[in-house]
Amino acid sequence: MSDPNNSNLKNDLVLRALARQPVERTPVWVMRQAGRYLPEYREVRQQAGDFMTLCQTPDLACEVTLQPLRRFALDASIIFSDILTIPDAMGLGLHFEAGEGPRFSHPLRTAADINALPTIDPNDELNYVMQAIRVTRREIDGKVPLFGFSGSPWTLATYMVEGSGSKDFAKVKGMMFSEPRLMHTLLEKIARSVADYLNAQIEAGAQAVMVFDTWGGILSTERYLEFSLAYMQQVVDGVSREHQGTRVPIVLFTKNGGQWLDKMADTGCDALGVDWTTDLSDAQKKVDGRVALQGNLDPSALYGSPAQIHEEVKKVLDSFGSAPGHVFNLGHGIHQYVEPDNLAAMIESVRTLSTRT
Amino acid sequence: MSDPNNSNLKNDLVLRALARQPVERTPVWVMRQAGRYLPEYREVRQQAGDFMTLCQTPDLACEVTLQPLRRFALDASIIFSDILTIPDAMGLGLHFEAGEGPRFSHPLRTAADINALPTIDPNDELNYVMQAIRVTRREIDGKVPLFGFSGSPWTLATYMVEGSGSKDFAKVKGMMFSEPRLMHTLLEKIARSVADYLNAQIEAGAQAVMVFDTWGGILSTERYLEFSLAYMQQVVDGVSREHQGTRVPIVLFTKNGGQWLDKMADTGCDALGVDWTTDLSDAQKKVDGRVALQGNLDPSALYGSPAQIHEEVKKVLDSFGSAPGHVFNLGHGIHQYVEPDNLAAMIESVRTLSTRT
Repeated sequence: MSDPNNSNLKNDLVLRALARQPVERTPVWVMRQAGRYLPEYREVRQQAGDFMTLCQTPDLACEVTLQPLRRFALDASIIFSDILTIPDAMGLGLHFEAGEGPRFSHPLRTAADINALPTIDPNDELNYVMQAIRVTRREIDGKVPLFGFSGSPWTLATYMVEGSGSKDFAKVKGMMFSEPRLMHTLLEKIARSVADYLNAQIEAGAQAVMVFDTWGGILSTERYLEFSLAYMQQVVDGVSREHQGTRVPIVLFTKNGGQWLDKMADTGCDALGVDWTTDLSDAQKKVDGRVALQGNLDPSALYGSPAQIHEEVKKVLDSFGSAPGHVFNLGHGIHQYVEPDNLAAMIESVRTLSTRT
Repeated sequence: MSDPNNSNLKNDLVLRALARQPVERTPVWVMRQAGRYLPEYREVRQQAGDFMTLCQTPDLACEVTLQPLRRFALDASIIFSDILTIPDAMGLGLHFEAGEGPRFSHPLRTAADINALPTIDPNDELNYVMQAIRVTRREIDGKVPLFGFSGSPWTLATYMVEGSGSKDFAKVKGMMFSEPRLMHTLLEKIARSVADYLNAQIEAGAQAVMVFDTWGGILSTERYLEFSLAYMQQVVDGVSREHQGTRVPIVLFTKNGGQWLDKMADTGCDALGVDWTTDLSDAQKKVDGRVALQGNLDPSALYGSPAQIHEEVKKVLDSFGSAPGHVFNLGHGIHQYVEPDNLAAMIESVRTLSTRT
C-alpha cells in the first residue's frame, strides 16, 4: 500500500499514549461519547426511528460518531455501533425495548441452539459497520483516530444465553457451572467471530480497537481466567496488530476487573481500561509498565459543578502521575442525564492540568 | 442478669469460628436462607399477602426464619426481615412491586427532605423486629445462634435517594458529588439509627449482627472510605459488643468490596463477608488474621449437580485452608430458582470435607 493507515492523522496523542510514548498533554476521549446526553444525537436517533436502524445506516452512524467531535476537544472518536452486533448477525434478533436494555428474540438455551449457531462473515452480515467506518474515516479527515470495538466473548455469551441484561445471571452462570464444555463450545465460536470482526474493522479503517468485557467482573478469579480472559487472549492473538505499516493498538476493558489487571496485561494487549473502583496508582503497580491505562473518572462526577469536576479530574491525573501511558477517560460510559457543558468542563480540566511545559 | 445470653446454646460453632477459635468442622449458614426458593416459604408469603406484612408479623417472621433449620443442617439462623426497615420507619413508604425490587413512595431529593427526616426509636417503630427476634429465640430453643442485621448507612442512603434500585445510581452519586455535606448529614442520621437498631436487636436476643453494604462497591476507594466505611465504623463503635456477659460479634459485608478488606478489618469488627469475586486466600492475606471471614461460594454454583457442587465447596474450603476463623456461606443471597436439594448437597459437602479428625 502506498498510503500508511495514519498518514494524514493530525492528532495522534491517543495512539502515542497507548504506545506509552511521551505526550505534550494527557489525551482524552469518553466511552459512549456519541449518545443520548447530546440533543443532536437524540434528534438523529428519532429520525432513524430505532436504535438498530441508526447502527445499520452508515451515514447516520457516521453523523453521530462525529457529533461529539464538533462540540468537544476530544482526542479520539469511536465508531457508533453496539457491542451486540455479532449475536444479532448470528440470527438472535437484537432489539431494544423502551427504557429497557438490549434483548434477544432467540436466546440460546440448549446444546442444540449452540451447535446450530452459524459462523458469520463480518464483511457480509456486518458490512454496515465496515461501511460506517469507511465513511467516518473519510469524513473525519485525520482530525483524530477512530476506534473500532466489540463486546468480549464472555459478555456476548451472557446476553446470548440470558436473552437480556440480568441481575443474577442465573441462566448463563447455571450453564457455566452445570455444562462447562457447552459453554466453552459457545465461547470458542464467539471468540473466532470477534477476532474476524475486529480484523474487518481494522481493514475498513479502525486505527485502534477496544474489547468491552462488561460482565467479566461477575465471575470468581478462577472462572474469569477460564471463561472470560482465555477468550480475550484468543482475540488478542487473532487480531492483526499492524495495518498498512502502522501499529493498531488493542485495549481490553473488564468492568469490575481491577484485581485482574496483571493477568489482563499478560495477554500482550497494548492497554487496559480501568473503572473508578480501582485507583490508577494501584493499577500501575499491578501492570508494572507493561501496558497503557485508560480511565477512570466516575461518570457520576459529571453531575458536580465545573469546579468540583476540576478537582476530580486532578485526582485522577495525580493518581496516574507523570509516567507515559495514560489516556484519560471515564470509568464507564457517560450517563444520559449529564449536562454536555459539564463534559466540556472535564475535557478543559484535563487539557489544562496535564499540559507538560 | 442471672442468665447469660447464650446459656442454652447447643451449637456455637458459628460464634466460635467468628471469634477465630478452633472448631471441629467449618460451620455453615446461607444469606437469604429463609426465602423464595423454599416452597414452604412461598406458602407463608402468600398467606401473609405482601412482603412487608410478613416482615411485620412476628409469628410469621419467626416461622419463615425457622423453616430452613427444619430442612437443612445449618449452624446459624438469621431473623427474617429486610435491609430497608429503617427508612420505612422514617416514613419513606417501603413497598415491593411484583417482579421489581424495593421502592420508596417518598424518596429523599432535597436538603429539606433530609433535614425533615425524623429520628426513630427502634423499640417503637421497629418493635415488630424486636418481637420477631424474641419469639424466634424462644422457638429456636438454643438449637443454633440467631443473627440480627441491618443495611449499611451508605446502602440505605442509596435506596432512600434513588427511591429504588438503580443501574447507574445517578441520583445518589450526583448528590454525593455535588452536595457532599448534605450527603454526610444524611449518612450521620442513618448511622445513628443503624447503631440504635442493632443494639435493640441485641437487647431483644440477637446473638450476632451483620451489616449488609450492598452498594459500597459502586464507589471509588476514596469515596468508599469517606461515604461508606466511615459510617460503618460509627456503627461498629456504637454497637454494644457484649450482652449478658457474652460477646456479640459484628460482621461487615461490602459486596464487590474485596480490595478494601484490609480497611474494613481496621474498623475493629469481628468478621467480614466476602463475595466470590475475591479468593479467600487473597482475602486472608489482606486481613492478616485480624478478623474471621464468611463466604464465599458463587450462589450460581448451586445450579450444578451435587457432584459439581461438591467440587466447588472443596475449592472454597481449600482456598481458606486450615486456619481458624472461617464460616462457610454463599458470596451473596441464595437465588430464588435454586433446587433446595442442591443446598442440602452443599451443606453436606461442607460438613464432610471440613471435619477435623
